[in-house]
Amino acid sequence: MDHHSIGFLHPGAMGVSLAASAVASGHKAYWASEGRSDATRTRADMYGMTDTESIEALCANCSIIVSVCPPHAADQVADEVIGHGFEGTYVDANAISPHRSKEMGIRFAQSQITYVDGGIIGGPAWQPGTVLYLSGEYSESIASCFVDGVLETKIISKSIGDASALKMCYAAYSKGSMALLSAIVAVSEQLGIRDSLEAQWELDEPGFSQQTHERIIRVTKKAWRYAGEMEEIASTFESVDLPNGFHLGASEVYQRIADLKDMEIDPSISEVISRLSAEC
Amino acid sequence: MDHHSIGFLHPGAMGVSLAASAVASGHKAYWASEGRSDATRTRADMYGMTDTESIEALCANCSIIVSVCPPHAADQVADEVIGHGFEGTYVDANAISPHRSKEMGIRFAQSQITYVDGGIIGGPAWQPGTVLYLSGEYSESIASCFVDGVLETKIISKSIGDASALKMCYAAYSKGSMALLSAIVAVSEQLGIRDSLEAQWELDEPGFSQQTHERIIRVTKKAWRYAGEMEEIASTFESVDLPNGFHLGASEVYQRIADLKDMEIDPSISEVISRLSAEC
Repeated sequence: MDHHSIGFLHPGAMGVSLAASAVASGHKAYWASEGRSDATRTRADMYGMTDTESIEALCANCSIIVSVCPPHAADQVADEVIGHGFEGTYVDANAISPHRSKEMGIRFAQSQITYVDGGIIGGPAWQPGTVLYLSGEYSESIASCFVDGVLETKIISKSIGDASALKMCYAAYSKGSMALLSAIVAVSEQLGIRDSLEAQWELDEPGFSQQTHERIIRVTKKAWRYAGEMEEIASTFESVDLPNGFHLGASEVYQRIADLKDMEIDPSISEVISRLSAEC
Repeated sequence: MDHHSIGFLHPGAMGVSLAASAVASGHKAYWASEGRSDATRTRADMYGMTDTESIEALCANCSIIVSVCPPHAADQVADEVIGHGFEGTYVDANAISPHRSKEMGIRFAQSQITYVDGGIIGGPAWQPGTVLYLSGEYSESIASCFVDGVLETKIISKSIGDASALKMCYAAYSKGSMALLSAIVAVSEQLGIRDSLEAQWELDEPGFSQQTHERIIRVTKKAWRYAGEMEEIASTFESVDLPNGFHLGASEVYQRIADLKDMEIDPSISEVISRLSAEC
């Protein structure tokens, strides 16, 4: 087996779990600390990642780079790597639309860099169940980096864009329906019939109302990331002439609660509802 | 107990089941055949409803009129009843926004007609579980018409608009999430990754993909009605400054498959997907 030097941009909660699966599979994991937070350093240190300090050094040192970042930052990370003359294989594992991934693939090809499309379904890969979907001609070389880790990999096809398309369609329901539920709870509160709605939900499915509250409170930690992802999904729907309104609505819902991520203690359901009800 | 003469405009699949519950509770049920179809006559006859022929005669003969029709027709039915000088209690049990119900209430009040707001949750009331929610000062007099039938009634409050608000919020999820799923299946097909998406759904919840197909096929019979209902929900969301995009998207989805209601045999999932993928 080849032992690869794999760079992760950047070791957030998800990225560090991918790095851990690569290390468990016999590879070396790198990160670049320039401009990153203390929290990122703590995570990277905890899982034995090596700091190259600059992205330039990371590009010179690694044969594979995996990008794991919020969707709005994906192009900037890719362009930095291209700018530093990286010569290995680049994986964009972010929640971006398939056409954006294809455009990214064209830019990498123009710089003679191998590109693989990725999409992650599931939370940070500490328990089985999280899958890194891959597409593109060189998917196999990436899948082989994680064979002994917790992270599963699945190759969809040889076409760049397919892994991103799957990620978009999957999150369209999981995160789209969560945003819809959040909006409905806020509407019902404003119209003064939330108790009646939740009582009817309880009749249909005991526990549903309480679970919905818990899920809405939990999502406040991630809403800042989800807002951009919903826009990517809206753009994906539009690209095949299906309505983009579901996810533009979902993006607005997540934007309204985005700043709740910094609360030290969980907000109450009333507090989330009050944020949801105020236009940004 | 008072024995009421109750008019139903009109005895569609839902309306006739309400009439049956009124008859089971000792009341007499009327309908007006002018302009209605043979199918409506068959249903009305089957459940012992009396035909007054004209809406004018129905208004003269009944102390209560219950409107059960698609949302776009609700105002026309109400205005006809007002125009004929009806002097009893009118219930709008349709899927309309709370502000539209309030406006309707004002028009009835101006004509000295008692008005009750209604909203039905569930399918035609042949088995327990379907609830006619009621709001407004005179709700009790309507609830008492159905005490011995299959239809349940629940009084929410004395405020006109509350029953409609509940109906809107409930359908916002049940029918809104169904439209979202339908759109996602169409997007995934167009992007060529439907198999992978459905395989991932199966991992999350065995049976989900097959159930989704069945639900999408079943909804084609009702999509023609749902399109208008989704617009009412969009307008309800907008009235309290929550995003209307979810349900404008849902309305478009249902419009695209609206004409599948007339197919004699169920369409295949591929056929539904191909309709969903074509702009109207």
